[in-house]
Amino acid sequence: MAAATPAPSVADLIERHQETLDRALRAIAERDYWSPYPEFPKAYGETGAEDGKAAFDALLGTVFAVDGQPGTGDLVSGEASPYGIELGVSYPHAEPEALIAAVEAARPVWAAAGPAARAAVCLEILARINARSHEFGHAVMHTTGQAFGMAFQAGGPHAQDRGLEAVAYAYAEQTRLPQSAQWTKPQGKRDPLSMVKEFTVVPRGTALLIGCNTFPTWNGYPGLFASLATGNGVVVKPHPRAVLPLALTVRVAREVLADAGFDPNLVCLAAEHEGGTAAQVLAVRDEVKVIDYTGSTAFGEWLEENARQALVYTEKAGVNTVLIDSTDDYRGMLNNLAFSLSLYSGQMCTTPQNLLIPRTGITTEAGEKSYDEVVADLSAAVEGLLSDDNRAAAILGAVVNPGVLQRTAQAAGGEFGELALAPRPVASAEFPGATIRTPALIKADADKPDDRTTFLGELFGPIAFAVAVESAEAGIDLLLRSAREHGAMTVGGYTVAAEVEDALVEACLEAGVSLSLNLTGGVYVNQTSAFSDLHGTGANPSANSAYCDAAFVANRFRTVEVRRHS
Amino acid sequence: MAAATPAPSVADLIERHQETLDRALRAIAERDYWSPYPEFPKAYGETGAEDGKAAFDALLGTVFAVDGQPGTGDLVSGEASPYGIELGVSYPHAEPEALIAAVEAARPVWAAAGPAARAAVCLEILARINARSHEFGHAVMHTTGQAFGMAFQAGGPHAQDRGLEAVAYAYAEQTRLPQSAQWTKPQGKRDPLSMVKEFTVVPRGTALLIGCNTFPTWNGYPGLFASLATGNGVVVKPHPRAVLPLALTVRVAREVLADAGFDPNLVCLAAEHEGGTAAQVLAVRDEVKVIDYTGSTAFGEWLEENARQALVYTEKAGVNTVLIDSTDDYRGMLNNLAFSLSLYSGQMCTTPQNLLIPRTGITTEAGEKSYDEVVADLSAAVEGLLSDDNRAAAILGAVVNPGVLQRTAQAAGGEFGELALAPRPVASAEFPGATIRTPALIKADADKPDDRTTFLGELFGPIAFAVAVESAEAGIDLLLRSAREHGAMTVGGYTVAAEVEDALVEACLEAGVSLSLNLTGGVYVNQTSAFSDLHGTGANPSANSAYCDAAFVANRFRTVEVRRHS
Repeated sequence: MAAATPAPSVADLIERHQETLDRALRAIAERDYWSPYPEFPKAYGETGAEDGKAAFDALLGTVFAVDGQPGTGDLVSGEASPYGIELGVSYPHAEPEALIAAVEAARPVWAAAGPAARAAVCLEILARINARSHEFGHAVMHTTGQAFGMAFQAGGPHAQDRGLEAVAYAYAEQTRLPQSAQWTKPQGKRDPLSMVKEFTVVPRGTALLIGCNTFPTWNGYPGLFASLATGNGVVVKPHPRAVLPLALTVRVAREVLADAGFDPNLVCLAAEHEGGTAAQVLAVRDEVKVIDYTGSTAFGEWLEENARQALVYTEKAGVNTVLIDSTDDYRGMLNNLAFSLSLYSGQMCTTPQNLLIPRTGITTEAGEKSYDEVVADLSAAVEGLLSDDNRAAAILGAVVNPGVLQRTAQAAGGEFGELALAPRPVASAEFPGATIRTPALIKADADKPDDRTTFLGELFGPIAFAVAVESAEAGIDLLLRSAREHGAMTVGGYTVAAEVEDALVEACLEAGVSLSLNLTGGVYVNQTSAFSDLHGTGANPSANSAYCDAAFVANRFRTVEVRRHS
Repeated sequence: MAAATPAPSVADLIERHQETLDRALRAIAERDYWSPYPEFPKAYGETGAEDGKAAFDALLGTVFAVDGQPGTGDLVSGEASPYGIELGVSYPHAEPEALIAAVEAARPVWAAAGPAARAAVCLEILARINARSHEFGHAVMHTTGQAFGMAFQAGGPHAQDRGLEAVAYAYAEQTRLPQSAQWTKPQGKRDPLSMVKEFTVVPRGTALLIGCNTFPTWNGYPGLFASLATGNGVVVKPHPRAVLPLALTVRVAREVLADAGFDPNLVCLAAEHEGGTAAQVLAVRDEVKVIDYTGSTAFGEWLEENARQALVYTEKAGVNTVLIDSTDDYRGMLNNLAFSLSLYSGQMCTTPQNLLIPRTGITTEAGEKSYDEVVADLSAAVEGLLSDDNRAAAILGAVVNPGVLQRTAQAAGGEFGELALAPRPVASAEFPGATIRTPALIKADADKPDDRTTFLGELFGPIAFAVAVESAEAGIDLLLRSAREHGAMTVGGYTVAAEVEDALVEACLEAGVSLSLNLTGGVYVNQTSAFSDLHGTGANPSANSAYCDAAFVANRFRTVEVRRHS
């Protein structure tokens, strides 16, 4: 291990991070649990929590400078903590054109640095981010509304895992060809033909990351690090309501790049006011060759339609389904589902929306349960889970933005159907201004056209439907069609019947959506684990790629060959 | 080795081809010379040549049945041998809709067969095609105009190499994840979380191969086998003037698929008359998820613009350049270039079009040579190479179609500039009706706007320009801009000056085009060797992908995960 110095050389960084990279490469092949970034807040030193909170507090009410990046001198702001605290952070405004020019100027040296140097620099960025996980946790919490525990984990180490995973994939794909190869072709009695061939990775160009409101780091790091590790420069355009976590990320990246002797403008921040058009302007620039986007279907489709000069990786909306056919652990199932519906107020792209329950009821180890009983028991499980306001707040987090709040109010008003469980506001002792809501569970019938129209649209937020279906088969059919037509990031299933399980697996393979079966313990359908689980499949309308696989990275660079006689 | 049986099981095929697959996997990592398919005609048995010729002759004047594929009963035809012989082969016509339906019906079992079974079936298809290389050689010769020697090699074993290479890449990418993985996450003092995760490759759907006139098999096999090996069904839409080689391919594929117990409709033939619209109709069908295309820029761009539901892999037009700065083997250089310009009458997407020569001349081991001397000596080298009509015919082949012939006539008439070397017709003793032309070499000046307009457009066929440039640096500059704006499949360079070489390499990396340096022997800039050389880069406008790399195959399938507690 090289001694840590203020400005480590690239060689130092390679040595420092080689073992982690090697281990990550093994992890993505084996898919067992692994992470180099501890997920427990206490693992970050005795004063880690305090220090992180203090660092976050010190950011409040300040201008977040990005030294050395071109700017207009104007400032933008607009973040509002779902917990009601005043953030008051403003960011330098920059013209898209100037940012692109800065990244383009920075690119050549990075492009020439090669896969090993780039991986090491990326791992150093991740290591420095990791050391500040508490600070990132608060930043994620107060921009997304995630409760601190989740913001720390999902916005910190788990996001870092996804970033590292992308770096490992990028390194693996860039090194599949040798840098240099000897080619000797026999020519019968004549001398063989003999050549030396050099293969050089050539990055695409400038990449654009368009961040989302709910998971700025977790959903942002795969694309950011995949692009950076494959030699591209990156303009980071955060969601106007979740700038801080990505602004911190950009700052760390720039520090590491500069320390390692690269131009920090390889990673630039394009902060803007809500309603700004930086994403649209940047996305269609000729220099922008790669775009990573998480957000609404409408803008995702706009990107796919208009950013024709770029590879566009999108994660858009989906409608996630759980089929409930039967179980041998009724209580475990209810508790697991209650948690999945409640976690972060259902504001995950992976949260189940439609729970399909045969109208004739389900079989359990505790006997038959009618549709109404299942709905009532699930409602009770949610109520039980969230009965204590402090505990509820720690699970629910807060409502991310006015759009979700409005939708929740519509659900509470019965606009989407008959309420089995009404959402209620939860008071936070720590944050009196927090906007917290419990989930709504709405009864619906798959055979009623109006109901179908409602529950087959994505109602992002704490809104779920208990959908009565004719039978398990009818449910699987509905699930298949829903995933195909409306997209799905996840499917869950509960069944003890082999033929139902087989049909469900079959349907998920056909619809191109991943399936979690009979989750009754501490794993939830809405959570995926880096290095092991794929997030999304890229095989249905909800996303055109997955975190992370070879297809996510292999086209972010090309290979140029130079050959000559040896 | 399993005994060959008329209808081998999939297990037999896996066993039979495992060693070849393993060796191919090693080859694509090592990039040394390797091929399992002999490139010498004599390697195919004592009666191989005769048998192949007889098999080809037996096809002439017949209806080429594709048993079991849906058809309308109508026939299409329209191939015309550039050698003037009457082919008279007609093919069943089929409605695009019916073909898509047939492929869609055939897909599920193939999709479920898994990567190993599919690789083995593909290798069996290639093995049976290989055994018929002589027959394929004649079919390629009389549809493309390639001389038999080249048609045999490039259309036979070398095309098979590219197919196998794609199968190896497809197998590698589909098996990067384990089929099943155990995941165990420690939970401190509690029991660990423990799951089993299954990863299943899910093909995209139906693929479409749009074949080209000049290299129906060599340019067609990478996409065909990449799609097939990743579990997709394929509609093969040959160029109306080069149906036979792909029709034979489809027939062999269908035989092997049926023998192995799969629905032969996984691979269907969509033959059509010249001017038909099958490609346009098929390309925008919802079921078509992957398209491979080689041909004109106009239609390639149409596909990219309109076939939005599909991944579109295109190889379009380009303008290839050679920089001539200096050499220590003047004669070797001239002979090498003369061959490159002459081979298949310059009808390769990789043939150099623009030879950039400093107007102040070049340095050689035989002293300084002026621009005019280089042009004269190169013209003489071409004339020398092609002085004997029989030998000329064996190198030139014949002119593939009326478009190229017309362009050659324009060149001969001086329409593109002053002729340094006029093209001339060559008579073929064996084929009196053959249309054979030697290359035109035209003088041009990089600093004359009219000249630039002419030589910066692709003039596909036996037309090359000796372009006077101000200096090597100016030539490199022109080369860079030409490749970036007009695309290039190849760049060649001759220089003994390290700084010129460095600048040339730099420009090629920047333009995203592969470079062959100082070729003076038996390797030509227009030829690439499977398992070692990349064909194209995908990094400039001439093509958006390369044969073959991970990016060419990794997105033809997706992965669906099923996880459950263990």
